[in-house]
Amino acid sequence: MSARAAIIVTGTEVLGGRVSDRNGPWLSEQLAQLGVEVAQITVVGDRPQDMRAALDWCAALRVDLVVTSGGLGPTEDDLTARVVGEFAGRSMVLDEALEERIAAILRPLRARWPHLSEEAIMASNRKQAVVPEGATILEPVGTAPGLVVAPLETGAGPTVVVLPGPPSELRALWAAAIETTAFSAAVAGRTVYDERMLRLYGLPESEIAETLRIADATGVPMERLEVTTCLRRGEIEIVTRFEAPDASAYDAFAAVVRSRHGEMLFSEDFRRVDDQVAEMLVEQRLTVAVAESCTGGLLAGRLSERPGSSEYLRGGIVAYSNEIKESLVGVDHQLLAEHGAVSGEVALALADGARERLGATIGVGVTGVAGPGGGTAAKPVGTVWVAVSSSAGRSIVRHTMLRGSRAEVRERTTTVALHLLRRLLLGEDDAPSA
Amino acid sequence: MSARAAIIVTGTEVLGGRVSDRNGPWLSEQLAQLGVEVAQITVVGDRPQDMRAALDWCAALRVDLVVTSGGLGPTEDDLTARVVGEFAGRSMVLDEALEERIAAILRPLRARWPHLSEEAIMASNRKQAVVPEGATILEPVGTAPGLVVAPLETGAGPTVVVLPGPPSELRALWAAAIETTAFSAAVAGRTVYDERMLRLYGLPESEIAETLRIADATGVPMERLEVTTCLRRGEIEIVTRFEAPDASAYDAFAAVVRSRHGEMLFSEDFRRVDDQVAEMLVEQRLTVAVAESCTGGLLAGRLSERPGSSEYLRGGIVAYSNEIKESLVGVDHQLLAEHGAVSGEVALALADGARERLGATIGVGVTGVAGPGGGTAAKPVGTVWVAVSSSAGRSIVRHTMLRGSRAEVRERTTTVALHLLRRLLLGEDDAPSA
Repeated sequence: MSARAAIIVTGTEVLGGRVSDRNGPWLSEQLAQLGVEVAQITVVGDRPQDMRAALDWCAALRVDLVVTSGGLGPTEDDLTARVVGEFAGRSMVLDEALEERIAAILRPLRARWPHLSEEAIMASNRKQAVVPEGATILEPVGTAPGLVVAPLETGAGPTVVVLPGPPSELRALWAAAIETTAFSAAVAGRTVYDERMLRLYGLPESEIAETLRIADATGVPMERLEVTTCLRRGEIEIVTRFEAPDASAYDAFAAVVRSRHGEMLFSEDFRRVDDQVAEMLVEQRLTVAVAESCTGGLLAGRLSERPGSSEYLRGGIVAYSNEIKESLVGVDHQLLAEHGAVSGEVALALADGARERLGATIGVGVTGVAGPGGGTAAKPVGTVWVAVSSSAGRSIVRHTMLRGSRAEVRERTTTVALHLLRRLLLGEDDAPSA
Repeated sequence: MSARAAIIVTGTEVLGGRVSDRNGPWLSEQLAQLGVEVAQITVVGDRPQDMRAALDWCAALRVDLVVTSGGLGPTEDDLTARVVGEFAGRSMVLDEALEERIAAILRPLRARWPHLSEEAIMASNRKQAVVPEGATILEPVGTAPGLVVAPLETGAGPTVVVLPGPPSELRALWAAAIETTAFSAAVAGRTVYDERMLRLYGLPESEIAETLRIADATGVPMERLEVTTCLRRGEIEIVTRFEAPDASAYDAFAAVVRSRHGEMLFSEDFRRVDDQVAEMLVEQRLTVAVAESCTGGLLAGRLSERPGSSEYLRGGIVAYSNEIKESLVGVDHQLLAEHGAVSGEVALALADGARERLGATIGVGVTGVAGPGGGTAAKPVGTVWVAVSSSAGRSIVRHTMLRGSRAEVRERTTTVALHLLRRLLLGEDDAPSA
């Protein structure tokens, strides 16, 4: 029997749907990696009674651990700490040493609150140092300390980890929380899982459902594996969790995926196509430049996401109009007139032009109809042409039809381009169409 | 007393943190706009007992309405419908007319499932047509119907709206759900709210807290207004909900914000700065081109987000290296040597160069240190220079220091650029620094 946890996210603005919660999913992933099963994530408003009701429900679900996010800010300082203290049956006490440490953090920040009197700041400071008696304190990274609060009697209820809402603070305090004795005791029953990821590109998700059936039918003990598949930016991710003795079951499953999907399987080690492309560019001492139309800068934006990308990214041209395709990228006027801007010929001319004009060893050209307008019978919305070409004279041109909204078509086009770039870097001049 | 609702999102992949939930926040916003208070959002796994436990808790919270998302897919067809039927005390019955309508939807899609026998498809079809007796059926947009399930006895528990997980299907069926008699009856007690939004740029969030205090202190009946503020991409959004008789309280509050923040307040009608810039460009028949360094294409990407943006966006140059700043944008070598790439002089030269080289009436230049590396004592990570210039000889150059991760600095820089563009389009040649 594995340890189980629940996550409570507080925040009226999250509940109202205007801010999307990043902490719940992040905590959930961390807990899963530790082998703690997450029973649920609940979002409640910033009111003490809502928080208390959520805690009571977690107790009813008999989880071993509850992790809370938020409710420690300057305007609602003591809400979560106090409610959790009551829930655990512990009285609230002032920790004077903590009060002094918080004061030391606040002093240099004094200029941030010119409207507040010294007194008001110190009162808020003191409130944050009032904690449930016997709680383990997690030293503040911002100004709010975190807490690990065990029930007064062992086994009388879940242990509660109280974390601040700002994601960077939450993550830092989480790292401290899992090192505490109180945390270890609460999740003593956890199962240790291994997690692996297979990334595939260029096949429909339904194929994976069929692969799972085939693996099962050919004797792979699939019941020992927890397999989750999801589509992300036009790729398929298969995440598998298993206990150490079941590693051979996973190996057998991975072998089925490999044999059925061959080169569609591009990553078995958590590396994204972005990472693979960046690493190959650096290793091969190559540089890249892009000329993009429908993606309007998003491909260059994606290629410059990683720190240090200036080592291989020369730059790009967003050739939104035909004049710029001609004047800046050097696409032939006749070519545009003959084939239209959305064509394989123009995609290749964009790749060649980007490479030459920006002095890179590899060029990428992107053109397409992102929609919602601009589609024709011959070139409907979602028609995309991508080309890559190298100064060594190699090239690949790919046509694809993408479904979805304008934003989705634009985003998935960047994935198509990265995979084409990957193929070129692997030394392939052609590949099955996506 | 207002009507209250809870939202239950099912999905193991959402609970596992790998897929972020878009339905919960969206439904929450819809409910708020209808005047239904959302008590909580819960994410549970795809298991019947988890769904049932969540429904039971919603009943204990005495909400009037529960909205569920997911659990209607082909692999877990009947999970949600059956659990909700049991919860409402209704037996499950086959709706033959519905079965025929679903079959009619599936027939043309037959080619999608070449692996499945006709029989298997029809069995899954039939399962989806088995619904709680007396439930209101929402006609499928994909292949799964939605449901509105009232309790067997009025007032014996919440009415449950069952919706499919794919966001586009969920949104379409939601529109149908709120038109049903069963829905209206469940939320009869709802309060009708007005919602307004004030968007501000160029001031710290703490200023807004102070403004709220001042409004209160000067006699604005703030207790009649529900005010939520949040930071988004470097802007502040103040959303206020109020009942019709309290419109004058809102007007008084908005007047305080206007008088205290003047030109920092840039939108009172839900329009984003992106919308304002696009509309002014179209109205004034102007075109824009960008030359960007640290944002690496994201500014052009943002300017091309809106359908029809080719009307005003000429294109852009991602000048990641100094050579490209010189060769493609025409930045003077001497200028780069003298001031460095991250300087106001170079930002302006990038704006001028983009405008001239891409044949636009307005140019935008962006340069900065996005980090995490590359910072110096004089130009630390987060240093950003943005410039806009027009063919009429007007220009604005702005220096700003942004905090946060590489991704945050890059994203916020695009916001700085859009606001500078807005000022130029409004006919301003200078503005207070952000």
